[in-house]
Amino acid sequence: MIGRDEEWVGHKKDDIETPALLIDLDVMEENLQRMAAFFAGQHAALRPHTKSHKCPALAHRQLQAGAIGITCAKLGEAEVMAAAGINDILIANEVVGPLKIDRLMHLARRADVMVEVDSPQNVEALSAAAVAHGVQLRVLVEVNVGHNRCGVEPGEAALALSQRVAQSEGLRFAGLAGYEGHLVLVKDRVQREAGCHLSMQRLVSSRELVERNAIPVEIVSAGGTGTYDITGAWPGVTEVQAGSYLLMDTTYRELGLGFGNALSVLSTVMSRPTDRRAVADAGMKAMTLEFGVPEVKGRADVRLAHLAEEHAILELDRRGLEPGEKIEFIPSHVCTTVNLHDEFYGIRNGLVECVWEIAGRGKFR
Amino acid sequence: MIGRDEEWVGHKKDDIETPALLIDLDVMEENLQRMAAFFAGQHAALRPHTKSHKCPALAHRQLQAGAIGITCAKLGEAEVMAAAGINDILIANEVVGPLKIDRLMHLARRADVMVEVDSPQNVEALSAAAVAHGVQLRVLVEVNVGHNRCGVEPGEAALALSQRVAQSEGLRFAGLAGYEGHLVLVKDRVQREAGCHLSMQRLVSSRELVERNAIPVEIVSAGGTGTYDITGAWPGVTEVQAGSYLLMDTTYRELGLGFGNALSVLSTVMSRPTDRRAVADAGMKAMTLEFGVPEVKGRADVRLAHLAEEHAILELDRRGLEPGEKIEFIPSHVCTTVNLHDEFYGIRNGLVECVWEIAGRGKFR
Repeated sequence: MIGRDEEWVGHKKDDIETPALLIDLDVMEENLQRMAAFFAGQHAALRPHTKSHKCPALAHRQLQAGAIGITCAKLGEAEVMAAAGINDILIANEVVGPLKIDRLMHLARRADVMVEVDSPQNVEALSAAAVAHGVQLRVLVEVNVGHNRCGVEPGEAALALSQRVAQSEGLRFAGLAGYEGHLVLVKDRVQREAGCHLSMQRLVSSRELVERNAIPVEIVSAGGTGTYDITGAWPGVTEVQAGSYLLMDTTYRELGLGFGNALSVLSTVMSRPTDRRAVADAGMKAMTLEFGVPEVKGRADVRLAHLAEEHAILELDRRGLEPGEKIEFIPSHVCTTVNLHDEFYGIRNGLVECVWEIAGRGKFR
Repeated sequence: MIGRDEEWVGHKKDDIETPALLIDLDVMEENLQRMAAFFAGQHAALRPHTKSHKCPALAHRQLQAGAIGITCAKLGEAEVMAAAGINDILIANEVVGPLKIDRLMHLARRADVMVEVDSPQNVEALSAAAVAHGVQLRVLVEVNVGHNRCGVEPGEAALALSQRVAQSEGLRFAGLAGYEGHLVLVKDRVQREAGCHLSMQRLVSSRELVERNAIPVEIVSAGGTGTYDITGAWPGVTEVQAGSYLLMDTTYRELGLGFGNALSVLSTVMSRPTDRRAVADAGMKAMTLEFGVPEVKGRADVRLAHLAEEHAILELDRRGLEPGEKIEFIPSHVCTTVNLHDEFYGIRNGLVECVWEIAGRGKFR
């Protein structure tokens, strides 16, 4: 038996054990270059969100292609990326509670990490910990730009919290962050643009207010894959956090952004009970459903009817797809699907070129 | 900093890092005893499906409470359970492809494993491998009892495949398996019973046909948590595969089976942006959504509005739930939620009594 690690390199794609998460390396690299080319012509820079792939090898590829640093969702992801040699890390989230803040301070000794804040209590706790640990922590104030999740309101509230950060020992006010997450999946381009402009006005007007109060704003961070070219071109935005663009899914493909579907789940047909039904070995524990069922890749004659926990139930018109045959699915949601797997298999010309650990898988603390 | 492993034992529940998957040990043990008490009075025995917890420590508890063996969904799960000292294992699935069949034969040397089959080709491949490896493998013929996933049709098709297995060198025909998965979540008891009776008639009549053809049928395996007491009382059924009963979720609770919700996700409030909104640190990467949003545990004043990837957006009527406070959620689907976590924290009287590795997490191959 061949193991499911680096020993697969050089083997044929269809020989590896399933379910397996594949990256079409040519398509991934086209996505990488396409995004890099956009930001080469902008004032804003790319700080890709690594929550979408949780993979240090891919984060390094993004940095080599011109990204100025990376974004993480959780402290645990940032710890993984720092251990993989990445220095400039934004945790685009509030880090709350004594244990997590203590971990954050330890991390700040070996990586140039930033966090977001949206309350004076959190600023106070971070400041006290930074002083106690003798570290200097970069902090962004999170502004609610319409997503209605975390963040202070734009304008005076953003100013007040920014002033608080700027006055806090151990902290360095680095700027503002906003995430127009309510817009990144809006299909209509005109509607998406209009909403995004409104959100960025809220964010950039907060920047201007903070600067009028004599606090320099170095960073204004926002954006996702669905809005990267709108937010990334908006004057006053300095960084964009897009992540899904690299591997993509069927949901983002609907927006017609030009990025290709590099990600798929390889599966084996394990049962062929009737002429019209086949069952493959990838279910809800290999692909997520919250954005809808995945798509069968490259086979117009086969439809994924539904997913059970460990089974994909396929409908087709005729025989074919015998037990043992391989079939691929394109996930509907890259971020949560990746989080179900421990490794990517990088494929080129039908062969496994690399096996990359998804080291941030499950690092939600 | 305290790590997230056994060092947590003895600490207060609310002190551990979040998100974290908790088991209320008293409730879990009541569920264990309730199920054991039912099967103590039946001809059929319990072979609990461990896909729901993927945890060797819990599987051993089930065996100690009278289970005759365990059920796994995948070969990879069975390997984990065998390595934890469990011997009698049913893989309630077809094992297809040369690599998996090779692994299965290696496993069969150190555990008394059973697999299901639904095609002559698979029987042939298993037989050839068993002969080559010099092992004797127990095989159940999977019968489609109405779930329309895998399995041969009841009656003549089941007989023909059973005969094939019985005649195959290296294989021992052990019986029949059927899963009434289309019925386990039917809320109406009368409807669930009627459907279940029909499914079990299909399965047991197939048993009778096989036995009339002079092939002894030792095992007839079926059932899930929603049908355990219907299927488990049906004459001719020898084993029931229920699994979710041990930890439970909100979906199974709706059936009024009497099992308590032992599972919850502990989360920390990380943002309190408005009087009516709080945000906690457990999202879709900590709790699954395919059966609906999880429920806030023990707090009628707080509603989980929706889950983002790493955030639970909560609605409430008044202040309270300040950043740093803990809140718990009851998952809507135990099996897929458990698969997002690496360990359980067993809680009794508000303290961590044990930390159990979810060793089968991600073992979908």
